[in-house]
Amino acid sequence: MAGIKHLVMAKFKEGAPVEQLVLDLKKLASEMDIVKSFEWGEDVMKDERYNHGFTHVFILTFDSAEDVAEYMKHPGHVEYGKKFRAGVEKILAVDFPVVVEKTAIA
Amino acid sequence: MAGIKHLVMAKFKEGAPVEQLVLDLKKLASEMDIVKSFEWGEDVMKDERYNHGFTHVFILTFDSAEDVAEYMKHPGHVEYGKKFRAGVEKILAVDFPVVVEKTAIA
Repeated sequence: MAGIKHLVMAKFKEGAPVEQLVLDLKKLASEMDIVKSFEWGEDVMKDERYNHGFTHVFILTFDSAEDVAEYMKHPGHVEYGKKFRAGVEKILAVDFPVVVEKTAIA
Repeated sequence: MAGIKHLVMAKFKEGAPVEQLVLDLKKLASEMDIVKSFEWGEDVMKDERYNHGFTHVFILTFDSAEDVAEYMKHPGHVEYGKKFRAGVEKILAVDFPVVVEKTAIA
């Protein structure tokens, strides 16, 4: 689907509760209808020339920029954001309206 | 779809032929059956605390890490990579097997 993606990359602190943070985000995403998809993954290329230290990618998809704004200010997200930021050494975030150039149905 | 995503972020040099680079990547993706999807977009949040200067996101999806490797060494990609790198001031790249936690059919 197209829409707008909220992409977050993280480098977690040593000992951060990564599994719990993923579970909590999964719960938050599942509870909010405006979150159309939630995908994440851990970098396996691990090429230090290119990953800038980031190890994890989280991608949430919304229908509109207004829905992203609603998500950002939602109390559940604000609370989650505090826990997430406490666990990260480094964070990257961008929002981009998705241009789909090729898609294959699996 | 799940699979493995090859995610590239870029900060382009002033005057770089961004539109042409996107068109060329679209052509390459369309010609290679192992590229299952190609999406891209330009950051609209533009929050300098979080974007690390990156403005564009490109995401290609493959079925397997072997297919990503085949893509990386494909002559068309090697040639494209030279042109792309010549146009960027800064580049980020990671590969991550996708964990789909929530998906909604549009």
